[in-house]
Amino acid sequence: MRLRAIISYDGSQFSGYQVQPGKRTVQLELERVLQTIHKGELVKVVASGRTDAGVHATGQVIHFDSHFNLPMDRWRTALNVQLPKDIRIHSVEEVAADFHARYHAEGKTYRYKWTLNEIQSPFERNYTVHVDRYKPNVNLMKEASVHLLGTHDFSSFCASKTSIKDFVRTVRSIDFEWKEDSNQLHMVISGNGFLYNMVRIIAGTLWEVAIGKKNVDELPGILQSCDRKNAGKTAPAHGLYLEKVEYS
Amino acid sequence: MRLRAIISYDGSQFSGYQVQPGKRTVQLELERVLQTIHKGELVKVVASGRTDAGVHATGQVIHFDSHFNLPMDRWRTALNVQLPKDIRIHSVEEVAADFHARYHAEGKTYRYKWTLNEIQSPFERNYTVHVDRYKPNVNLMKEASVHLLGTHDFSSFCASKTSIKDFVRTVRSIDFEWKEDSNQLHMVISGNGFLYNMVRIIAGTLWEVAIGKKNVDELPGILQSCDRKNAGKTAPAHGLYLEKVEYS
Repeated sequence: MRLRAIISYDGSQFSGYQVQPGKRTVQLELERVLQTIHKGELVKVVASGRTDAGVHATGQVIHFDSHFNLPMDRWRTALNVQLPKDIRIHSVEEVAADFHARYHAEGKTYRYKWTLNEIQSPFERNYTVHVDRYKPNVNLMKEASVHLLGTHDFSSFCASKTSIKDFVRTVRSIDFEWKEDSNQLHMVISGNGFLYNMVRIIAGTLWEVAIGKKNVDELPGILQSCDRKNAGKTAPAHGLYLEKVEYS
Repeated sequence: MRLRAIISYDGSQFSGYQVQPGKRTVQLELERVLQTIHKGELVKVVASGRTDAGVHATGQVIHFDSHFNLPMDRWRTALNVQLPKDIRIHSVEEVAADFHARYHAEGKTYRYKWTLNEIQSPFERNYTVHVDRYKPNVNLMKEASVHLLGTHDFSSFCASKTSIKDFVRTVRSIDFEWKEDSNQLHMVISGNGFLYNMVRIIAGTLWEVAIGKKNVDELPGILQSCDRKNAGKTAPAHGLYLEKVEYS
């Protein structure tokens, strides 16, 4: 029986999602708990994609196989009672035996958070990026973001340490939300898929437009150059949230 | 020259406020940074009171003496650039040479936070107390809280491991706030001073009233008994925030 779960995690105490020798990762914790439930048997967990150290998730999707005889409405609690509190399972459902969390993902939505307070609250230090010296021009960010919408070769917005060959992705929407009460600026970006560090490089580049370090007009040239050096800096990991994964 | 500062800290990575051998505490970090600024000289920091491991502060007040020649508007930044990000200095001002952060405190306000979501967000695990199985009756909490207002011997609401002799304190107000968007219940309590664990024992006792484990009518008897055993359980540390300290 194949199960799909929607999970959230606070990335700040993890060395990313994927298993790495000697490191605390989200996948390690999930597989450890599933192994306990399955009396020592290894259960492989597949996610929609990995997330880096410090990156958070509010709607990551995973799948795994189980022959464990547990009523479907008990799975969520069975996992949550054993998982550390920085990972939570929000729902578990049975899916077709050939469902694949990564291969079948048809879209993803990420959120990037900046806080503009003069002093950053100690409670937000791992959850938003603090930018105190600048007043960002959100209108310029919006104008610049339009150049990234649609289907493009996003090589300029991909971290160089990658082995993939196809850099063409479709960005469906980029929206900005201003949170008055918390002085936060959010960028919400959706697309059919994202290259390694692509959201963080887009966030960093649009931020440079917002503070006048780059011009709106430079965006088409940056895209066309297919050269990572021309885009802005990679924005910090702890501002990023994987919010939603879509399946048909 | 004596300086007073208002500070906030995320208590989750500290073994409380006060210096303890071999432990990471808020006082240790403050004194370490002041020692660096003062070129190795020890600078003692005095707070309005200690807070326990896991307890947070949004408006703790400290004082210290310095002969370091720094313009007053530079102090805040000088401290913040060297402090870890889970402590922030919000303001620094010169005060009279005999000002004392603890002895001159005339009132304190604490906030206690519960979250009532079915699944607790991983981002709130250190910042609110998760209570999923109960629907608290806030009206009963309010009724019960009225019995605690005013001047009483609060021995029943003081952790037993204390060496003090005077258990009389004045509670000025206890208010409840329901945060619709985050499903949080806050208790805000002000008084002239609080005994060891007093706010957490009041929170725990009022919570037991809210879920029907104790009756409103029992409160006067609990107070009068002067016996810790009659009050409710001590509510967890991580729901508690020192919000404000008042001076004349």
